[in-house]
Amino acid sequence: MIDDAMKKDLQSRLQRVKGQVDGIQAMVTDERYCIDILHQITAVRRALERVALKVMGSHMESCVSEAVRSHDGQKKIKELMETIDQFVR
Amino acid sequence: MIDDAMKKDLQSRLQRVKGQVDGIQAMVTDERYCIDILHQITAVRRALERVALKVMGSHMESCVSEAVRSHDGQKKIKELMETIDQFVR
Amino acid sequence: MIDDAMKKDLQSRLQRVKGQVDGIQAMVTDERYCIDILHQITAVRRALERVALKVMGSHMESCVSEAVRSHDGQKKIKELMETIDQFVR
Amino acid sequence: MIDDAMKKDLQSRLQRVKGQVDGIQAMVTDERYCIDILHQITAVRRALERVALKVMGSHMESCVSEAVRSHDGQKKIKELMETIDQFVR
Repeated sequence: MIDDAMKKDLQSRLQRVKGQVDGIQAMVTDERYCIDILHQITAVRRALERVALKVMGSHMESCVSEAVRSHDGQKKIKELMETIDQFVR
Repeated sequence: MIDDAMKKDLQSRLQRVKGQVDGIQAMVTDERYCIDILHQITAVRRALERVALKVMGSHMESCVSEAVRSHDGQKKIKELMETIDQFVR
Repeated sequence: MIDDAMKKDLQSRLQRVKGQVDGIQAMVTDERYCIDILHQITAVRRALERVALKVMGSHMESCVSEAVRSHDGQKKIKELMETIDQFVR
Repeated sequence: MIDDAMKKDLQSRLQRVKGQVDGIQAMVTDERYCIDILHQITAVRRALERVALKVMGSHMESCVSEAVRSHDGQKKIKELMETIDQFVR
């Protein structure tokens, strides 16, 4: 569960990511220097990582915590760890 | 230097990335399960990595290769390695 | 808290990591092909990621879960998220 | 090809990595706090990344550059990009 403040924060971050991708598309069109394009891609990648970390944090504070309190945490923790594994890889 | 075929390929990949981010925004709005959102973010991150690798490859085949042939490769290689370093980190 | 089975598992994984690093050192000494060395480094990096994920999972199942049950989860979750952030980056 | 100075540098970095892994094993034995163990794993991972980047740089300055000068760069660049792809993922 993602609360309203987090929802707003995520939406504005994702909106900015799209703006950054627009910027990269313009750089490709304008035949900008590859290294500069790569720096922009790195920035977008980092922005996405932050979004993912926010979602993970929310998930732990809501679903995982609720499951833990209902003595059913293990399954939720396993599911989250597998998701982090795929993300990290 | 990015040739025309690569340019077209990058633009369509970046267009798809924006579509994927739209999809994530819809998932956030619809309060979809955090784990599903995280899988989608992982997919976008991976798509961006592929774009970065394509740009790196182009850069090596053009700018870096030209510099190497003009006996001036070291500086370009150093610049690229620093960029990969930031990307990997 | 890491239980005894996990401790044993982590120790044997870390022992293997050292063996793999020994192997890389031998490859460097023997002037093996750089690409082969890089594949080995990738394997060690992946092995370390698995160790980290095991430790994260243990931490969630013990410390974080206990904190959540004592209604004090938020601080522990924040601490873990910051650690994952540094790991991912 | 890795020159002698680089060889020495890599060996000392890899030696240090093994020392760091020893340290993590001791932390596991001593049941140290998971978050502290994770910080140490992050440090080793970063150290390994630096070794990989050094090897990549060497490879570009020697094998890849030679191939480029013999008008046979494309294959070596493709091979390196696939290796970076596996490393990044």
